Amino acid sequence: MKDQHNTSAVIDCDLHNEVTSVDVLLPYLPAHWQEYIRLSGFSGPLDNPYPEAALTSAQPGTEPPVGGPPGSDLWLLREQVLDAYQVEYGILNCAYPVDSIHNPDLAAALSSAVNDWQIDQWLEPEARLRASLVVPSHFPKLAADEIDRLGSHPGFVQIFLPVRSAAPYGNRRYYPIFEAALRHDLVVGIQFGGTPGNPPTATGWPSFYVEEYVGMAQVFQSQIISLITEGLFDQYPTLRVALIESGFTWLPSLMWRFDKEWKGLRREIPWVRRLPSEYIREHIRFSLQPVDAPPNLAHLEQIIEQLGSDEVLMFSTDYPHWHFDTPAEAVPLEFSPSLRGKIMAENARTFYQLEPVKHAT
Amino acid sequence: MKDQHNTSAVIDCDLHNEVTSVDVLLPYLPAHWQEYIRLSGFSGPLDNPYPEAALTSAQPGTEPPVGGPPGSDLWLLREQVLDAYQVEYGILNCAYPVDSIHNPDLAAALSSAVNDWQIDQWLEPEARLRASLVVPSHFPKLAADEIDRLGSHPGFVQIFLPVRSAAPYGNRRYYPIFEAALRHDLVVGIQFGGTPGNPPTATGWPSFYVEEYVGMAQVFQSQIISLITEGLFDQYPTLRVALIESGFTWLPSLMWRFDKEWKGLRREIPWVRRLPSEYIREHIRFSLQPVDAPPNLAHLEQIIEQLGSDEVLMFSTDYPHWHFDTPAEAVPLEFSPSLRGKIMAENARTFYQLEPVKHAT
Repeated sequence: MKDQHNTSAVIDCDLHNEVTSVDVLLPYLPAHWQEYIRLSGFSGPLDNPYPEAALTSAQPGTEPPVGGPPGSDLWLLREQVLDAYQVEYGILNCAYPVDSIHNPDLAAALSSAVNDWQIDQWLEPEARLRASLVVPSHFPKLAADEIDRLGSHPGFVQIFLPVRSAAPYGNRRYYPIFEAALRHDLVVGIQFGGTPGNPPTATGWPSFYVEEYVGMAQVFQSQIISLITEGLFDQYPTLRVALIESGFTWLPSLMWRFDKEWKGLRREIPWVRRLPSEYIREHIRFSLQPVDAPPNLAHLEQIIEQLGSDEVLMFSTDYPHWHFDTPAEAVPLEFSPSLRGKIMAENARTFYQLEPVKHAT
Repeated sequence: MKDQHNTSAVIDCDLHNEVTSVDVLLPYLPAHWQEYIRLSGFSGPLDNPYPEAALTSAQPGTEPPVGGPPGSDLWLLREQVLDAYQVEYGILNCAYPVDSIHNPDLAAALSSAVNDWQIDQWLEPEARLRASLVVPSHFPKLAADEIDRLGSHPGFVQIFLPVRSAAPYGNRRYYPIFEAALRHDLVVGIQFGGTPGNPPTATGWPSFYVEEYVGMAQVFQSQIISLITEGLFDQYPTLRVALIESGFTWLPSLMWRFDKEWKGLRREIPWVRRLPSEYIREHIRFSLQPVDAPPNLAHLEQIIEQLGSDEVLMFSTDYPHWHFDTPAEAVPLEFSPSLRGKIMAENARTFYQLEPVKHAT
């Protein structure tokens, strides 16, 4: 038997499964919340990062023929991604915006319902899928309870945290989430978007969506700075964090700046004993899509070299969103086979601890 | 006469003149505010970006022998910078934090006092200096009034805006400031720091100063995104913006991301007719210090090339702050003489419209 997974395997670490409407969650909710939703007219949590009706939110052809938004149909996901690209594992990130709900019990109940729905409708029917636990991240104790409830289910490999938050995730209020992740050996996945109520920039509310979209890279950077500064990786040396849809070409500059200023200001944070860039390379991984790459391939190669590691990038399609790159398009042919193999599958395999699938030969 | 300014001239576009205490401003304040300050115990606006007593806030040896904080003494500035490095022009950025004062009339009166003090104590005694107008940036109409009062004084070349603000500077509330800048042909200088009251990150208040310091690069990026998105450079095609103490190695990544997303989302902002990177290269300049450069010279050369322009960087010492680089240290010897000359003087000369000083030969 010849092991070819290093050169041909594909692990897609960012697929989206969409909740068509709150109605699909009703069977997974307690009677109280079923009644509440029916009587109140509540139609589900609100967010608008990928407006369902916008032409640019999803690839053409991803609308299920049976109705519902792109990303809501397992058969289509199989056909358009898993089978089409012979994906070995695909990791689901369900961006159901429970963080917009201020009622803690409802936020927790909806999170549990989404996760039970994920097991029932996605993980059990499809062995190639893994998923991220949706949690009420703004109520860390309740989030930890949900992680303890389902974190050891073999289908869940990650906790989903929206990158926008009311406080930086290194803040001690969030420790229960990280500790629960470690109890169940899960990656903490920080994902584009979020609806915490505070503005998406450090300078208040922007006027246009393009500002929020382009500026989301800055929010990811704030989170990295916080996690390292607060000493999360010193306190929890096995903690793994994935940044999903963050871009990555800003990373070399952030590492240079952070390393330099750590040298000048580290006496304020003596528990941070190593260069910030070392924590990043060891503990943090980045999904590939949407790529914030330069138009010039030589510049992309420079950035890859500046990263100082061939282990931080992980292939993703971001299906069904419009940034979608196929595996053939995602990594330039000019990259070495070793680097391609790492980006396309092996970095994610190691990070998410996914066993290679054995094929008969 | 041989014109050598292209290879040896030095223009320092970031020097700090510190107000020793509010007492030095009293002679420049109306009687009402003099009495108010004396009777109320008000000791000046508060900010803490460079704590006076912190060893790392200023280069050793910059404390005036006559007392007062580093940066408060013109004689020392002459000796340690202007004479020491044969600086042709030095641009003062007085970081007096009037933006922390919520009383609009007091914020305006203190701004006027600082500017009159700058004329009296710095510009008139020293012909090599130029200065930035301190304005109550959080009250745009009052800021415009101050710009109209003094903007045509030949010593002022720039308006000082702190990078942290309650709304992004592209917001229409700030248009009176930009219009006043254009009436007097002044650069708008956006500078590290600020005390607007809102948190310095998009994820709320960080716990440590190092987070705020490293993360200030993200705030600068939000401001660039806002200025371009709102169409400031379309509406005001002669507008010039300097980012001071912003770093610049993050700029290629921002340009790539912004150009790409503009292509996808530009129908939301149809007034933005060109690639965002084109506006940046044409309208925005960056001071050199503090450098967020990589430890590896080859990577710095890559970044310079990725900028796509040799006209965006302008030398600065940031005197008296601890990042201080001498002209000999600031630009690597490996850079071409043409690039060195542009960074050391010519980019700032063109941008700030500074006449070459003629020397007898």
